Amino acid sequence: MKVDILKSVLVTNDAIAEANRKSFDRHKALVVNLMSSPGAGKTSLIESTVDRLSRKYKIAVIEGDIAGNIDAQRIAKRGVPAIQINTGGACHLDAAMVRTSLPHLPKGRIDLVIIENVGNLVCPAEFNVGEDFKMMLLSLPEGDDKVRKYPLMFNQSKVLIVNKMDLQALTDFSFASLARDLKAINPKIKAFRVSCKTGQGINHWIEYLEHEIARKKKNLR
Amino acid sequence: MKVDILKSVLVTNDAIAEANRKSFDRHKALVVNLMSSPGAGKTSLIESTVDRLSRKYKIAVIEGDIAGNIDAQRIAKRGVPAIQINTGGACHLDAAMVRTSLPHLPKGRIDLVIIENVGNLVCPAEFNVGEDFKMMLLSLPEGDDKVRKYPLMFNQSKVLIVNKMDLQALTDFSFASLARDLKAINPKIKAFRVSCKTGQGINHWIEYLEHEIARKKKNLR
Repeated sequence: MKVDILKSVLVTNDAIAEANRKSFDRHKALVVNLMSSPGAGKTSLIESTVDRLSRKYKIAVIEGDIAGNIDAQRIAKRGVPAIQINTGGACHLDAAMVRTSLPHLPKGRIDLVIIENVGNLVCPAEFNVGEDFKMMLLSLPEGDDKVRKYPLMFNQSKVLIVNKMDLQALTDFSFASLARDLKAINPKIKAFRVSCKTGQGINHWIEYLEHEIARKKKNLR
Repeated sequence: MKVDILKSVLVTNDAIAEANRKSFDRHKALVVNLMSSPGAGKTSLIESTVDRLSRKYKIAVIEGDIAGNIDAQRIAKRGVPAIQINTGGACHLDAAMVRTSLPHLPKGRIDLVIIENVGNLVCPAEFNVGEDFKMMLLSLPEGDDKVRKYPLMFNQSKVLIVNKMDLQALTDFSFASLARDLKAINPKIKAFRVSCKTGQGINHWIEYLEHEIARKKKNLR
């Protein structure tokens, strides 16, 4: 019974996600759905990304939070439009919530839309919102056992960014163990190690993202 | 419609939680429902607690995870019974899931049952499972803005343990900001600062917990 309700929710969601995708395509935008645990550094990664790319590309950010607009304020300070969605208790963004934000996007061409999901390693992975791909952040202090505990999110993500590398000396995080688990769950995942605080590794991520922006434009032609 | 479904789910859940509570009372157990983000250190706190109290008290642990039994294995190594519940995708424990674990508890008197919820700062706070109180862990690297972003969990918790104090020098976590937000959301919350890694502050938590175990026994008389 519970399963049937969920299935019907997901079918409806996918239809709305498809409509969102068409809207995003009219903007010519690459759209990424960024997921992680609370406090892994999603907003910091967006800040780092925006700082490096906002002169070259038109960027917009959609912020999902249970409550408040702390993150949207942080992004707006960077001079990039940030639209806040409050989920009012829901632990993930769904396609309908993202749909309500679309009229607030800038008109015309947008190169990159980053959707920051609610901090949660579980449910966001189940809901398409119209993105080109899902990606996730894992921060070193969370530990190296997360793939086995939250397999769906690691399975659904095209990109994994391991953040807070500046804390590596103080944690016993095993990259060998992470690699073993990823091989079982999602061997094709593209992984980067970064520190949003020190800037370590960010350039590799930026290079990849620029490549994806170009690829989306080519595919839309 | 969605809201009505949730309401009816919660009413059913509360009835089962009440039945769980009666079962726990027959064991004379104090029952805590431990919640946090993934990787904040729930299992480490349980390990620290068990190490200090398992000679003096009968303890059992109920482990909630989407998948796997890593945490139950860690606890069982400590010589304490650990019952694993796999939620199979659900992002929280509910009362019915906890109910399925009750026949696996040791017979007779148990002083303390610790229920480790799924790592998630959102949904676990909505579901009573038959606990005496909810408590949560927040780890320093998650940042000091979590009360504003995830208010329900901080509101529902009687105890807040701030973990990973050993990383304090490397974070810009503001306890003043945390205290301000807690004052608005839950001024009565009992807060402890600990490092499960170094042992810092654990004794204060243990002292409090022993007091609560004694109080529960007294109330049941």
